[in-house]
Amino acid sequence: MRILLTNDDGVEAYGLEILHNIARQLSDDVWVCAPVIEQSGKGRGITLHDPLRVKRLGEKRFAVSGTPTDCVQIAINDLMPQPPDLVLSGINRGFNLAQDVTLSGTVAGALQGMTLGIPSIALSQCLDFDIDLMTQWNAAEVHGAPVLSAILEKGWPADVVININFPDCPADEVTGVEVTRQGFRDAHEMHAVKRRDPRGRDYYWMNFHAFDQTMIDGTDLNAVAHKRISVTPLHLDLTHYETMHRLKKTLGGTVPKQINIADDEKAGAAE
Amino acid sequence: MRILLTNDDGVEAYGLEILHNIARQLSDDVWVCAPVIEQSGKGRGITLHDPLRVKRLGEKRFAVSGTPTDCVQIAINDLMPQPPDLVLSGINRGFNLAQDVTLSGTVAGALQGMTLGIPSIALSQCLDFDIDLMTQWNAAEVHGAPVLSAILEKGWPADVVININFPDCPADEVTGVEVTRQGFRDAHEMHAVKRRDPRGRDYYWMNFHAFDQTMIDGTDLNAVAHKRISVTPLHLDLTHYETMHRLKKTLGGTVPKQINIADDEKAGAAE
Repeated sequence: MRILLTNDDGVEAYGLEILHNIARQLSDDVWVCAPVIEQSGKGRGITLHDPLRVKRLGEKRFAVSGTPTDCVQIAINDLMPQPPDLVLSGINRGFNLAQDVTLSGTVAGALQGMTLGIPSIALSQCLDFDIDLMTQWNAAEVHGAPVLSAILEKGWPADVVININFPDCPADEVTGVEVTRQGFRDAHEMHAVKRRDPRGRDYYWMNFHAFDQTMIDGTDLNAVAHKRISVTPLHLDLTHYETMHRLKKTLGGTVPKQINIADDEKAGAAE
Repeated sequence: MRILLTNDDGVEAYGLEILHNIARQLSDDVWVCAPVIEQSGKGRGITLHDPLRVKRLGEKRFAVSGTPTDCVQIAINDLMPQPPDLVLSGINRGFNLAQDVTLSGTVAGALQGMTLGIPSIALSQCLDFDIDLMTQWNAAEVHGAPVLSAILEKGWPADVVININFPDCPADEVTGVEVTRQGFRDAHEMHAVKRRDPRGRDYYWMNFHAFDQTMIDGTDLNAVAHKRISVTPLHLDLTHYETMHRLKKTLGGTVPKQINIADDEKAGAAE
């Protein structure tokens, strides 16, 4: 099994080293293609406006001056002699839970693998950023390979990625694996800090608020809060079907009714 | 009604000017907060690694050195004296259909408005990039305001955004409004072009392939191909429920079975 690793914390991140150790428990053929610079919060961003540089750091190790999506795309299409059988993205320094999955570069790396037809998994370690980060990877380190093995054995559809979050506790305190759905938090969590630069000009810097998590059974948020490893299948169909069916009845249809109404209104508004 | 406009083509984009004209047909209180530089393909990216600069270009007009997500966040939380009643993002130069919606900065601008509790709509004009782009906005220009009015009148849930795509044809050839689901294309569409810089060093530049679209009834792709205005409700819950239910039975549960199996395997693999 050929495995491609990426992440969004950058090619030198400690979480990538741990993921490499885990991947080596599954295969001898492990490749790395990861961003030169941290890409947290880049979501599914791709680099269209600038060129990308690729640095070969070793026989199977590359750094790219772009996002995780760029990395996976270039690795599979341009750098690897044969495509991988599995893409692993992470291990992210900190959780990717609830609507974070839509902002996460780590999850994006896995999503890009999936869109290229490769089974793909994102992995994140929940951490307490107030204490030494190097000491908090035990849950992922110990349970990573066996949980991956179990998931690989079960399999999942080609248009789905698996998002794993390891809880913020030592490995021996982990109480289980829970298959979850994506939770939701109060979204007023992002905010910008306003500061003044040394030349006296204002700038803003984006940050995240502390927030109260709503603990709802069955969600990724709830699972890790109870020291369980959260496993969430994700896909890229954003359609809200319930609203689609409702609007189809009231708004849509093949008859251009709205357009006719529209034209009348428009004519009125223009005068 | 206070309306906030954003886009991903940048504050000087022609599509934003058209959107401003459309918005002024709905309200006198129209605000703009858009990126300084084009942000196509930035997805839900937020800027965490760098400071953001805000330039006031007019009483209700701002440019931000970041992504559409940054723009909407800072506009609503820091720049506008009162929050908007509606966020409109676009009009994008080119379609946002199928899985593009997950890469699109335009859709991301609307999604960020929604996460802040504001009804939000993304608008895109399908275009032929091989002919003069300035001449191809007629469908959006004519049908924009009335279609928005009709959608606003019907309403939609607070956790949903509306993604509108105007077909690539003159306004009088538009045959209707269709409420659609997100389509899917063959995903092997992105690729990197390898080039050599003036100093003789390699670089890559991301691009998109031409592709064959699969025309499936009911999708956004099919609607615009048939000269209909596509209206797709989108949300941010990426959970693939079918796989979740299947994996719950085989992999998950509150009993830490996988962990026990895992630990045994791990012990074996370590030696």
